[in-house]
Amino acid sequence: MKNKSIISLKDISKDELMYLMKRAKEVKEGKYGNFLEGKIISSLFFEPSTRTRLSFHSAVKRAGGDIIGFASAGSSSTKKGESLGDTIKTVSGYCDLIVMRHHVEGAARRASDVTDLPIINAGDGANQHPTQTFLDIFTMLEKKENLDGLNIGLMGDLKYSRTIHSLLVALSFFGVRLYFISPEALAIPERYTDYLDDINVEYEVYKDFKECGKDLDFLYCTRIQKERFYDPVEYESVAGSYIIDKEGLSYLDEETYIMHPLPRVDEIAVEVDEDQRAIYFEQAHNGVPVRQALIGLLLGIIK
Amino acid sequence: MKNKSIISLKDISKDELMYLMKRAKEVKEGKYGNFLEGKIISSLFFEPSTRTRLSFHSAVKRAGGDIIGFASAGSSSTKKGESLGDTIKTVSGYCDLIVMRHHVEGAARRASDVTDLPIINAGDGANQHPTQTFLDIFTMLEKKENLDGLNIGLMGDLKYSRTIHSLLVALSFFGVRLYFISPEALAIPERYTDYLDDINVEYEVYKDFKECGKDLDFLYCTRIQKERFYDPVEYESVAGSYIIDKEGLSYLDEETYIMHPLPRVDEIAVEVDEDQRAIYFEQAHNGVPVRQALIGLLLGIIK
Amino acid sequence: MKNKSIISLKDISKDELMYLMKRAKEVKEGKYGNFLEGKIISSLFFEPSTRTRLSFHSAVKRAGGDIIGFASAGSSSTKKGESLGDTIKTVSGYCDLIVMRHHVEGAARRASDVTDLPIINAGDGANQHPTQTFLDIFTMLEKKENLDGLNIGLMGDLKYSRTIHSLLVALSFFGVRLYFISPEALAIPERYTDYLDDINVEYEVYKDFKECGKDLDFLYCTRIQKERFYDPVEYESVAGSYIIDKEGLSYLDEETYIMHPLPRVDEIAVEVDEDQRAIYFEQAHNGVPVRQALIGLLLGIIK
Repeated sequence: MKNKSIISLKDISKDELMYLMKRAKEVKEGKYGNFLEGKIISSLFFEPSTRTRLSFHSAVKRAGGDIIGFASAGSSSTKKGESLGDTIKTVSGYCDLIVMRHHVEGAARRASDVTDLPIINAGDGANQHPTQTFLDIFTMLEKKENLDGLNIGLMGDLKYSRTIHSLLVALSFFGVRLYFISPEALAIPERYTDYLDDINVEYEVYKDFKECGKDLDFLYCTRIQKERFYDPVEYESVAGSYIIDKEGLSYLDEETYIMHPLPRVDEIAVEVDEDQRAIYFEQAHNGVPVRQALIGLLLGIIK
Repeated sequence: MKNKSIISLKDISKDELMYLMKRAKEVKEGKYGNFLEGKIISSLFFEPSTRTRLSFHSAVKRAGGDIIGFASAGSSSTKKGESLGDTIKTVSGYCDLIVMRHHVEGAARRASDVTDLPIINAGDGANQHPTQTFLDIFTMLEKKENLDGLNIGLMGDLKYSRTIHSLLVALSFFGVRLYFISPEALAIPERYTDYLDDINVEYEVYKDFKECGKDLDFLYCTRIQKERFYDPVEYESVAGSYIIDKEGLSYLDEETYIMHPLPRVDEIAVEVDEDQRAIYFEQAHNGVPVRQALIGLLLGIIK
Repeated sequence: MKNKSIISLKDISKDELMYLMKRAKEVKEGKYGNFLEGKIISSLFFEPSTRTRLSFHSAVKRAGGDIIGFASAGSSSTKKGESLGDTIKTVSGYCDLIVMRHHVEGAARRASDVTDLPIINAGDGANQHPTQTFLDIFTMLEKKENLDGLNIGLMGDLKYSRTIHSLLVALSFFGVRLYFISPEALAIPERYTDYLDDINVEYEVYKDFKECGKDLDFLYCTRIQKERFYDPVEYESVAGSYIIDKEGLSYLDEETYIMHPLPRVDEIAVEVDEDQRAIYFEQAHNGVPVRQALIGLLLGIIK
């Protein structure tokens, strides 16, 4: 994977994904030490983010590397009308690898076209955010050594969530059965079910997680934005079917792990945090070793 | 003090304060070297600050540690509606200790409730900013080895200044005599004089520092905000009693040290800066060793 | 140059400039290693900038040093009404050298008056930005070992561009011939031609680079802001004479290097980037070793 850019899940094969997972596990176990010593990573967040930005920063610094960059477009030269291409070409002379988030779909791909440095897409609009998927899969693999044969629920906004679409592609590498749980207005788009049909991945469709919760190994939740509904009353009428609180927990199996890309608003009640099945913070924290391993591989330091 | 959070002065006993002061002195003398090597401190400034933020950053980096974080809420996920608790739980997986400033009173306490990492409150609204008090006391101890028996003037906005209230509590640990110098509208609140009465700390009340300046070992100044007065004319009529300029200096003793938490606006004239009694920049710079020592103690690196 | 502040080109003699160039070349060749280890540089950008800020950060971190600071005045105490002098005095206790950009002309000079630390002016309003000139000269010296006898074109907004004015002063140290290429409304001010007359530097004046392109060793382009023209139609009528595209390249010599301080908007077409004469990104990247050498010299680490 040396010198590759990671813009979308399509940039990575199943073999590469498994390779990354293996290395991430080693990184988490402390095998590589300060392997980023002397390396500078640019962290270009044209669009703000705490979680992803700090996770990358922690990843780099915990491995002995350093960061330059900006946390919002307001502190960047784009205000002066500079093109993204020129910003990337310039910054390429200052660092060894670029992590970027941009509000425009395709921005990261465009960036990778103008530089020889590896680019990691940390989110481009509603499009792609591949390292989120890597840490999601890593977290699942930590809990269940093998994903083959597992039942995995994807719940919430299945229509618009890039996290869900990206995760679905990665999960399709494995012999899983998917459970799509959403209101009809936010159902999984046909192009994804067609894709799953093509490659013979099995899936079921539900309107309430309580109907299938006992079958699930993982329930991956996402937020439903009220604004997606024409009629707020309609939203209120269905919201309860996608909110996990203490009572909702009883509809899950004792080993159904609950995941969430965060930030959450109210789709998982705070009272659930203490339940041993709630692993969304653990999941977030796995961003550090996964991103470390990815950077190490792209720089050719980790083989 | 290992693993403690420092949210308010109430979190620290006199013994602990003196212990911190002793260690801070050793840190300033260079005893501990790069003791923060390999440590990552989160610097979460939901509310902007130059002085405090850069002082913490210098403290961490001078001791070989590193920083992740943000300088304003605008670059953070709270914009997406994330709760403070979730931000703290997430960031806890990225670092070893959290320094935070927040505009909401009680925010730091709330943060310390959801994480096992030590939290240092770098200001929560009008409430608490304990490390300011630590560096204030440290600076006094540098000038006078023992605070017992000293006369200490607290001047300016004694009603609203969190710096004053916090310092007053710390000073009450010692056998000092306090001189409260303020316009009536900004007098020290009764709950503080009641407290001092209870623990037998002596104090006097003045309307003009010129009346007691010769008696003081330290004169600690704070800013009076014009907006605190209903009538601006009233403000103008008293302002001169709380402004130190070259002429005002003659009303102080030759050994009355002048302190200020900074930033100042016009309560101390720039012409005073060169006077040897003006120690407010020295005081600000002491923030570095004091914060280094505190972090070292909370992380259990300094014993 | 130890402990000097670099506010304007006037702070540096030809000998010092050549000394800096020599050291920068050695830095670029890797001679000095991590010579900034243990040093903290304050990066105070009261006015935003990507290029310059990240270039300095890369310079410091690539040499093992560290950075504290802010990327915009919004995150600084100036919002609370603190004077620049007080900010500088405070920050001086946190670091070893200060790099600053400020929108007010003269701000950097004012800053250097209140601190003993070296200050590097990274731009004060329309006034000075000396390290841009240093990297410009460095880049020219990389291409042509000796500037004596060269023909150097300065094109675009010769009236308002601080980059041009600063570069002109530096070039006047050498035996160059200058070619001023601009619309009449943006001609080089008389005070500069008077200065060149005084010191016997030869120059010619053109309205279109196509008339002199074949004679040039370097063509240094800057942006013409439409707003400088009372009549937009007039702008459109002349713009083509100052835009380099593939066709425009044919009017240059095969060895005419094209430079630009960046960011560009449309004065150099993207199609030109691949031409071997286009060296503006190389030029930007030279900011790193030049700034490293400068910091090393001012701190007395590089002799």
